[in-house]
Amino acid sequence: MFVFQVIGKHNSGKTTLIEFLTEELKKRNLRVGYIKHDPKGKGLTDKEGSDTARVKPNTVKTALVSPNTTTLWILERLNLQEVLNFFTDCDLVVVEGFKFEKGFPKVLVGEVEEDLVGKIDRIDITVGSKEDYKKVLEWVLNNLKNEK
Amino acid sequence: MFVFQVIGKHNSGKTTLIEFLTEELKKRNLRVGYIKHDPKGKGLTDKEGSDTARVKPNTVKTALVSPNTTTLWILERLNLQEVLNFFTDCDLVVVEGFKFEKGFPKVLVGEVEEDLVGKIDRIDITVGSKEDYKKVLEWVLNNLKNEK
Repeated sequence: MFVFQVIGKHNSGKTTLIEFLTEELKKRNLRVGYIKHDPKGKGLTDKEGSDTARVKPNTVKTALVSPNTTTLWILERLNLQEVLNFFTDCDLVVVEGFKFEKGFPKVLVGEVEEDLVGKIDRIDITVGSKEDYKKVLEWVLNNLKNEK
Repeated sequence: MFVFQVIGKHNSGKTTLIEFLTEELKKRNLRVGYIKHDPKGKGLTDKEGSDTARVKPNTVKTALVSPNTTTLWILERLNLQEVLNFFTDCDLVVVEGFKFEKGFPKVLVGEVEEDLVGKIDRIDITVGSKEDYKKVLEWVLNNLKNEK
């Protein structure tokens, strides 16, 4: 992996050069990554015309490195297991959705959608109202204890 | 790592439950991850009040999994080397900024800032105008050849 930096004053044209380079490199079927430093933490991630929005389409991965947060875009279709690989340093991961995924314990909130009956592999605990929230918390903490 | 899913109909209160759980789990000093499925690709990543914006502050990592993009937030201060660890599947990585970083080849666009003279470890190639863009592209392609 060849890593190089583009440096220069504010408004010197760094991003314009990088747009040109990444477009040309993408045309050559190279897997291009882009890391943008945002030392002041001003970078908005959805903003049209932002540096990351301009360069991202030419990359397979783009990161905006802000002081206390790094935002990483992976521009490929990932399945749940591939996403979970980024979370191995966590004690627990809450997954919202992916209801057809098999194997993981499931908390059902409200009623099951009629067309899903029989298609969901398991329901471990159900939540009818806010009264049930503490019950779910206890269930999570117990599962964490049993993991250790 | 304990992984569980929260499922239920649209507007059933999944995110409200997850907000409660992740807040309680964070209070217990657990490293919490959150993965939100966005099967229709409608999720905006900066939007206030969005599911990820509500839960993210309670996590160390949050991901929004859209059809062709996964957005991952790492809510910790990372240095360049730690960010580069996410890019190992790329052929090349363009880094914009991090001018005081040592070791990596550097392209300078425009003039060097006066207060930086002597503080930047190396400048491999300089860009004065758009005429120089192809020269930089050739330089990148040559470096890639030499890597192999």
